[in-house]
Formats: sequence, structure tokens, C-alpha cells
Amino acid sequence: MGEAWEVCIRALEQAGTPPGHAATQTNLLLEAELRGRASHGLLRLPRIIERIHNGVADPKTRGNAVWRSPSFLDMDGERGLGPVIALAALDQVRERARETGIAVAAVSNNNHIGMLALYAEQVAREGQILLALSTSEALVHPWGGRRALIGTNPIAIGVPAEGEPFVLDMATSQVAMGKIHDYANHGRALEPGWALDGAGNPTTDAVAAKAGALAPFGQAKGYALGLAFELLVTSLTSSALGTAVKGTLDSSAVCNKGDVFIVIEAGSGAVASRIADYLDDIRACPALLPQRPVAVPGDRARAERRQRLDTGIELADEVWHRILDLAQCAA
Amino acid sequence: MGEAWEVCIRALEQAGTPPGHAATQTNLLLEAELRGRASHGLLRLPRIIERIHNGVADPKTRGNAVWRSPSFLDMDGERGLGPVIALAALDQVRERARETGIAVAAVSNNNHIGMLALYAEQVAREGQILLALSTSEALVHPWGGRRALIGTNPIAIGVPAEGEPFVLDMATSQVAMGKIHDYANHGRALEPGWALDGAGNPTTDAVAAKAGALAPFGQAKGYALGLAFELLVTSLTSSALGTAVKGTLDSSAVCNKGDVFIVIEAGSGAVASRIADYLDDIRACPALLPQRPVAVPGDRARAERRQRLDTGIELADEVWHRILDLAQCAA
Repeated sequence: MGEAWEVCIRALEQAGTPPGHAATQTNLLLEAELRGRASHGLLRLPRIIERIHNGVADPKTRGNAVWRSPSFLDMDGERGLGPVIALAALDQVRERARETGIAVAAVSNNNHIGMLALYAEQVAREGQILLALSTSEALVHPWGGRRALIGTNPIAIGVPAEGEPFVLDMATSQVAMGKIHDYANHGRALEPGWALDGAGNPTTDAVAAKAGALAPFGQAKGYALGLAFELLVTSLTSSALGTAVKGTLDSSAVCNKGDVFIVIEAGSGAVASRIADYLDDIRACPALLPQRPVAVPGDRARAERRQRLDTGIELADEVWHRILDLAQCAA
Repeated sequence: MGEAWEVCIRALEQAGTPPGHAATQTNLLLEAELRGRASHGLLRLPRIIERIHNGVADPKTRGNAVWRSPSFLDMDGERGLGPVIALAALDQVRERARETGIAVAAVSNNNHIGMLALYAEQVAREGQILLALSTSEALVHPWGGRRALIGTNPIAIGVPAEGEPFVLDMATSQVAMGKIHDYANHGRALEPGWALDGAGNPTTDAVAAKAGALAPFGQAKGYALGLAFELLVTSLTSSALGTAVKGTLDSSAVCNKGDVFIVIEAGSGAVASRIADYLDDIRACPALLPQRPVAVPGDRARAERRQRLDTGIELADEVWHRILDLAQCAA
């Protein structure tokens, strides 16, 4: 962990990133690795650095934030590093929400902000609710449709609870495109209902699905929610919509998706205690399969984090060597 | 329609409801009928009136609203009629959001607020985004669990778009308990995955499912969202949680669920126009089944409303006679 930290920081600094910004970006990637979310982990670092070299990510800026109205922050990310801009916006809306009860940041012109869970966890730990939405390239088909027209539009919700906060972080696709690629690499068949092929027909062939579309989670209702999130973000940030969204999966396009953070002052300690008790009731619910106890969102990520803090993280050799190269170290 | 309107108003007035409040409540029920949402329509009126007679609904109050902070409204519903209190809170937060950019109402001690779509549509028509959440009796099992511990917790999202606004309104259960009752009444088998029986085992027997639990929509992800909504509402309104929630399905318990309305100033006309174009692109997406074109949330409800404005609404005789009795008219 310590070695990975230093190498990532060095790689980002080699690309012109100030030390504080390099630490923010590296922390987010490593926290994803610790939680077992490799798709949002160090494998993203080479693309981030390529984007800096290609002029579509500016590692130095903290963005340009303007209060559109007393509780509404417009943040022009100025092509900055995703988490650097996101945290700069969050800091301001969190402080404002302490006074006004609720505040929102509409973030445009920002790069990929990574795993949303970390933002939700930090905010909820300090007694505020976070509702975080982000749009993304169109990979998801509308329910009953054959083409990818909607982003995987993740949502995170953090709610304070006594002890550990409640943290939900999920994409609105049935599975991640990273999982399709992983299945393709290992020659595994997809489960029915996960994806369509390039012609818009249902497929279990992972290679065919790479050129197709992901199913929305939750059929018609999940489609409706993912679409609603895309519209909400666009209405607030003026971001691109659908197939016009670029820049989170490539190294050369300006990133034109949007991010929205809504921060709300949460209830008192008594409510946080009742919420913790209720979550324990849910964990204690008799399970359909005895070997699979009922889980509360965030439980598994916390367990994985605890374990990896002991055992360390495992990285694919290819990813690690790429990052070492970027840091200009000998392998 | 005109006759139904007058009879409902008279039934509510007979129970001591002031004319303005009777009109608000009746309008919501009839708008649900017009949209083909009979479960939120006139069949609910007898219970509302029973609740007034039983002292757990006060038809006269408009609630007691206090600004906890500049953009955070605490509304004590004082056991008022659901839509009367909801609209009183919404009026205040909508006006505040015009100044501050975003505002939230946390509504407690209020009766069932009915079909959320109507609130979302009204707000979105006037250039604001509405995010509406409401909790309810625990009818839904956690994913992988055997007991009903979570509400059907509906969400509505309204986003302004040129022409007709985007309106999503959905419960977070796979199907409504009303649908289970309907299947039981008609001796129809449920689809696998909809419900558990009273012992917590999967069932397709609708009668057995009435004593059991509904599945969350969207498996693990839908469960996570429904749970997150329950926590968010409780954190803001101090409402009851899980199996402690009462008063939306019975006639005698004080209603202790919560409602949350978040209103945000939406983007400019240019964004509303881009959103409308995007929704048209989605409607034009090639369909998996040619006979089932891709739909945008709200489209079907609008079409049903247009049709019923011509043809009128159809009510079960039993419901209509019950309401006539309550209005003390001859059948």
C-alpha cells in the first residue's frame, strides 16, 4: 500500500500534478482498490495521465465555483482532475448546508470523479446526507429498446447512522461494462438479460456484448430511474445527453458529463441511533439461503477494506508495470 | 367525472372537510383515476373518511410549518389530509427555492399523500425539479431475506422539458400489494419472483402472498435504493422505520411515515429543449418487440388521461356505492 501510494503520487507529479492534487486523486483510486472495486482503482491511473498529456485534463486547477443563488453552486471544473474538483465543490456546499439546511453543487466540465462511495461516506460521517449523481457515456439501452442511449449514471446516498454511516453506491446498469470485458477476457458466458449485441439482440456472448448495450438494472423501473438521473443532472449542469457524452472512457475527448451533489443536514443523534438499530434488524432478517445472510449496502465494502488493510491490495502485473513506467521507476 | 367530483366533495364535506380541502383531496384521487392508477383513486376515499371519523385525520388543518434553517422546512402535518399538507409544504419550498436555488420540506405526522406524479408534474411544468420521497408500511423484504421490513417507499422525479415535463412515479417494490390482492381476487397465479408467503418462502399463490412480503424491484440494487429512501426520509422527518410504520393501510392508527420534497431550480430553456429532443430520441429507439415501442416514463399515464377525459372513468360498483352512501345520496 505504501509503495503503491508513492508510485502513484510520483506518476501524477511527473505529469505536472501538484502534490496535494496527486494525493487526492491517488487516495480515491486506492480507496476503491481497498473496497474491492478494481474497476475504479489504479487501472484508471494511466488514462488519467494520458488525459493530462492530451490536454483534456488540467491537473492544476481547482475549478471556478460561483454561487448561482444562496444554496446553488455552479462549479466549472475547467477540465480539472475529477476528485479534486468534486471535493472543492463539496467543501463549499457542505459548509453552506450547515447554514441553509440544504445546498446543491452542479459540476460541469470535470473529469471522472471515481468511486462515489467515498464522498458519501465522508459526508455522512459528519452528520450530513449526501445524494451524489454523475452521468456517463451511453452504454445502457432503454427498457424494450435495442440501442445504448443512456449512461450507466451512478448514484450514491450517504445517511448518518450511529457507528458506521449507511453508504449506497451503485450504477444504474444491470452490470458494469468492466464486468462484460472481464467475462470476454476469460471466455465466460454472460447471464441472460445482461446485455445486447451490436445488432440489438439479446446475447450471452461477452465479446459480442462489448459492441452492444448493457441492460438497465431493475427492468422498466431501473431504466426509468437511470433516465431520470440523466435528465436531472443535465438540467442542473447543462451537461451533454446520451450518445453525446464523451471523455470518461477515452483519453482524448473533453469530458462533458455532469456531476450533482445535494447535501442535506441530517437528523439528530436519536434518529441516527434508531437508523443503526433498524439496519441491525435488517441484517438479522432470516435469510432465504442460510449461507447468504442479508447484507446492508456498504457492509461488504467495509469488510473488504478491513481485510485489505491487513493483507494489502492485489494488482494485475500489467497495471502495476504501466504505473511504474509512468512514475519512471525501474520495475 | 363531474358527478364523481361532486359526490366526493359532498362525502368529504359530510365528514367535516372544508370545501377547499375537499377539492384538493378529490382532485388528487380523480387525477389518479384519469391516469389509470385506480389503486390511488377513489377506492381510497372511504378509508380517508373513516380516518376522519376515527380522529386520526383532521380535515381542517393546513399543518404547522417552521423553517428549521433558511432552505429547510419542517412541516408538522398535525394529522391533516395528505395532499392538503403536502401542497402547503410544497408551496413554501417552491417559493423559497426560487430565491435559494434549492429547498427541502420534511413532512411528518401527515396522512397518505397519494399519487406522487401529480406533484412532480405541477412542479416541473413551472420550471423546477421535484424529488419526492414517501415512506410506507413495511411490505417489502430485503434482498435475500424472508420478512417484510421495508416500505414500498415510492419516489417521484419531475424534470422540466419543452412541451410535456418528464415525470417518473414508482414504488420500490417489484409490484404493488394492490396487484397481489387483485390477482388473489381473480384466482390468478403470480409471476415467480414477485412475493414470498407468510413463512418467507417464494410463492406464486396470490392468497398466500397477501400474508407475506413483496420483492423489492431490481433485486439487490432496488432493495438498496428502497432502503436508502427509507433512511433518508426518516433522518429528515424523524418518521417511524420498518415495521413500526402505521396508518396508510388502516383506518385507526396515527400515520407516522414521512414525506420529503426537494425542489431545485432547473436549467434554462435551452436545456429543457435539449431534454425534449433526447426524450424523442429514446422514444424512437428501435424496439426489441416491434409491437412494444420504447416508452418514456409518464407517456402512458398522459395517454390514459387524455383518453379518460373523453370516455370518463370506470369505477367498481362497490366503490361507487360506498362513496354515494358516504355522501348520503340515493344510489
